[in-house]
Amino acid sequence: MSSKTYQSINFANKFSLFSEQWSQKVIAEMNDYQFKVARLRGDFIWHDHADTDESFIVLEGQLRIDFRDGHVLISAGEMFVVPKGVEHKPSAVDEVRLLLIEPRGVVNTGAEGGERTSEMDVWI
Amino acid sequence: MSSKTYQSINFANKFSLFSEQWSQKVIAEMNDYQFKVARLRGDFIWHDHADTDESFIVLEGQLRIDFRDGHVLISAGEMFVVPKGVEHKPSAVDEVRLLLIEPRGVVNTGAEGGERTSEMDVWI
Repeated sequence: MSSKTYQSINFANKFSLFSEQWSQKVIAEMNDYQFKVARLRGDFIWHDHADTDESFIVLEGQLRIDFRDGHVLISAGEMFVVPKGVEHKPSAVDEVRLLLIEPRGVVNTGAEGGERTSEMDVWI
Repeated sequence: MSSKTYQSINFANKFSLFSEQWSQKVIAEMNDYQFKVARLRGDFIWHDHADTDESFIVLEGQLRIDFRDGHVLISAGEMFVVPKGVEHKPSAVDEVRLLLIEPRGVVNTGAEGGERTSEMDVWI
């Protein structure tokens, strides 16, 4: 009887494969959703996603997300879901390592575009 | 100008609020998907989910998932997505702390039922 050993997806291993910031790399899919890893340091732009919530899980470091009426701090071992249509601006003083979960095809900068816009569907 | 401080969701804090095993607790929602935490030790039952993939992120310990043709070991800092329709049996020698992500309304035992069936939509 054959018995295959399937491979789990190791976050630290995935982060060892790239060093650039603000670029999202797909590591897994669940139905039409994607799990993506990213390194962030500095300020992202104000944007929203009109059609979908967006989930942030912090693996290392601390992420700040500003909203028009406040902010949240998300540290390693914590998560936050930004509701659809809510303007937000992620930032990190020191590099933060993130796991993002959202539907396939979501542009990281929403409708804003610009230099922080990540290439889509890059698997690592 | 008012400025609210939003609260992140801390996994360790959520686990401090319950001790029972095999019971899934909802901690967040993203669109029609739920993030759930669970403690597992021992053997789950063979089951599948005909209509959806199911994502496992291990926060502490090690989870084993057997398939009819093999298995995967998932340690802390790792994840795995079980494709829809694939029979699987989770197990853990020592207690494992999991984050599960799947659509709202998925029964943890699939169509099998039995004593391991978790109550649905219990938030913590």
